[in-house]
Amino acid sequence: MQALKQLIQLIQPADRGFEARAWERLRSQIRPRGSLGQLEVMAARLAGIGRTLSPDLSRKLIFTMAGDHGIALEGVSAYPQEVTAQMVYSFVRGWASINVLAEHVGAQVRVVDCGVAADLPPEWPIIHQKIGKGTRSISRGPAMTREEAVQGLLMGADLVRGAYRREGFGLIGTGDMGIGNTTPSTAIVAAFSGRPVAELTGRGTGVDDATLGRKIRLIEQALEVNRPNPEDALDVLCKMGGYEIAGLAGALLGAASVKVPLVCDGFIATAGALVACRLVPAAADYLFVSHRSVEVGHQAMIELLAARPVLDLDMRLGEGTGAALAMNIRDAWAKVLMDIKTFAEAGVTDTGK
Amino acid sequence: MQALKQLIQLIQPADRGFEARAWERLRSQIRPRGSLGQLEVMAARLAGIGRTLSPDLSRKLIFTMAGDHGIALEGVSAYPQEVTAQMVYSFVRGWASINVLAEHVGAQVRVVDCGVAADLPPEWPIIHQKIGKGTRSISRGPAMTREEAVQGLLMGADLVRGAYRREGFGLIGTGDMGIGNTTPSTAIVAAFSGRPVAELTGRGTGVDDATLGRKIRLIEQALEVNRPNPEDALDVLCKMGGYEIAGLAGALLGAASVKVPLVCDGFIATAGALVACRLVPAAADYLFVSHRSVEVGHQAMIELLAARPVLDLDMRLGEGTGAALAMNIRDAWAKVLMDIKTFAEAGVTDTGK
Repeated sequence: MQALKQLIQLIQPADRGFEARAWERLRSQIRPRGSLGQLEVMAARLAGIGRTLSPDLSRKLIFTMAGDHGIALEGVSAYPQEVTAQMVYSFVRGWASINVLAEHVGAQVRVVDCGVAADLPPEWPIIHQKIGKGTRSISRGPAMTREEAVQGLLMGADLVRGAYRREGFGLIGTGDMGIGNTTPSTAIVAAFSGRPVAELTGRGTGVDDATLGRKIRLIEQALEVNRPNPEDALDVLCKMGGYEIAGLAGALLGAASVKVPLVCDGFIATAGALVACRLVPAAADYLFVSHRSVEVGHQAMIELLAARPVLDLDMRLGEGTGAALAMNIRDAWAKVLMDIKTFAEAGVTDTGK
Repeated sequence: MQALKQLIQLIQPADRGFEARAWERLRSQIRPRGSLGQLEVMAARLAGIGRTLSPDLSRKLIFTMAGDHGIALEGVSAYPQEVTAQMVYSFVRGWASINVLAEHVGAQVRVVDCGVAADLPPEWPIIHQKIGKGTRSISRGPAMTREEAVQGLLMGADLVRGAYRREGFGLIGTGDMGIGNTTPSTAIVAAFSGRPVAELTGRGTGVDDATLGRKIRLIEQALEVNRPNPEDALDVLCKMGGYEIAGLAGALLGAASVKVPLVCDGFIATAGALVACRLVPAAADYLFVSHRSVEVGHQAMIELLAARPVLDLDMRLGEGTGAALAMNIRDAWAKVLMDIKTFAEAGVTDTGK
């Protein structure tokens, strides 16, 4: 717990002075005021995050965090649990959607075994940080111990801090892999929002009506059995979460601690980010939500975070795919700030509108 | 008119057989069915457009079409008319938003003088195709003659056809520059939709309430004076349009005629695309709308086109900026189709969901 407290103490809000200086430049560029909309908002945020008017986001890294879930054995997913390990193998081979989209945007991908239920071969070129072989079922008790949750947070934070400090990555993305992990993610947003589970539960990878009904009842049961305290983010995380969700939350804490922007993927990565922001509200300054997932509970997370996704593509895949696509847009924001000339620089008539 | 008829005859719908083959592959990839949402829809559309499962969108070209508008002299914009030529100069110098964003996505930009009111120096490295020095005011009669409208359509089409045939550009973007051009664009969507002008009129580059009121009255007057026939797209274009809008419409006809996808920018470029699709409905198969503009009438255009923008960034700049950002996403679609492995190729358990 001491290490977590130290990490939390490193997290400061973004710098409002740099944000203001960025807005000053953005408002003097040769185009109508505000005409680049969210590109401007985000460019200013990047300036405040990095304490610079020329943020360098050229080195991009996506952590795809994998873990299994006890609740998956109770029939909440369209896929069997062994698919988690199989998909990790496909990431290693470069066959999956995240490989294709990350390469497209020039981002590296690192796969982290946070808690896959299978023994993954040690020679696989992934980050082996298994906390446990799948969580316990949230329908019957906490997913993990408080210590395991802290371990996951610190692990995710350390990975991001190391990637920035030792390798100079200036933009971090987060994604997930874990059969059944929309169920704990829904439980997390239900715990924080207090809204009815039925309103927040979606079909994940594509379950039928009967499975959807069972998923809702199991999440309701998980909330009754565990009584997570929404004022205690660590309590919500260890009772409702997953090993990869702890890692995803820790990644945002790590990024915030070294003043690096983080782009989270869809439903599960946003669940992790939500936990981090409930634990340390200033972490939200460092977070960008990449896209609006079709998973119904994602909207509730977005509202709790007061976030504004830039992509609206009906995606619901995970792995970091939305984060990869959005990274390219973030990169544009940084260029918008410095490369578009001002009226004064260009000698164009300015009406001040 | 004979040349326009010949162009129109070249336009065929996209190939449904290639679309179906693309869907077959997309549905067998190692991820839940449909999990990449609109990325899949667009990947399949690209296959149908190009009659190939491996569309090559690597060479990207944006045409930024510039023109002036008689109506601008009646006080509908926050900027004076001379800004059109000034901004063309800033494009030439590489100072503007479109230069920055196009470079970001690896696209070339070509600026076309379709009808700027000033004499632009012939040595400027732009495409000099001036149809007239600004249109006549639509509040008092047609913006241009029917012959001028046809000239603009053919010019835009020829530029795209040449870029594809002689230089191999596989993805075309369109953008605009023209002080006052949200006014004719609003008049166009009002003519086609029949909806009240007040519901369709926005603030363009940022006009005040008094100017907005004047803009609405002038567009209503333009519709009364000209009585454009919504069943005759050429009539709507010559009475309500602009030289650059004719060029933008022609660009889509040209792209469709050589089976190349075209990404249009926001309000003005979409107005051009709408004219093209009303003239030749099959042209819509080749069109992607890049983003949802904050200009209120854009939503009506999107509905008339049954289009689905992928970016939602509150942008309202024009120049092709939204098209540039969206081009990168299109490129990802092409890669999604071929590079993500199928379950059979990867040996991952498939439940058929």
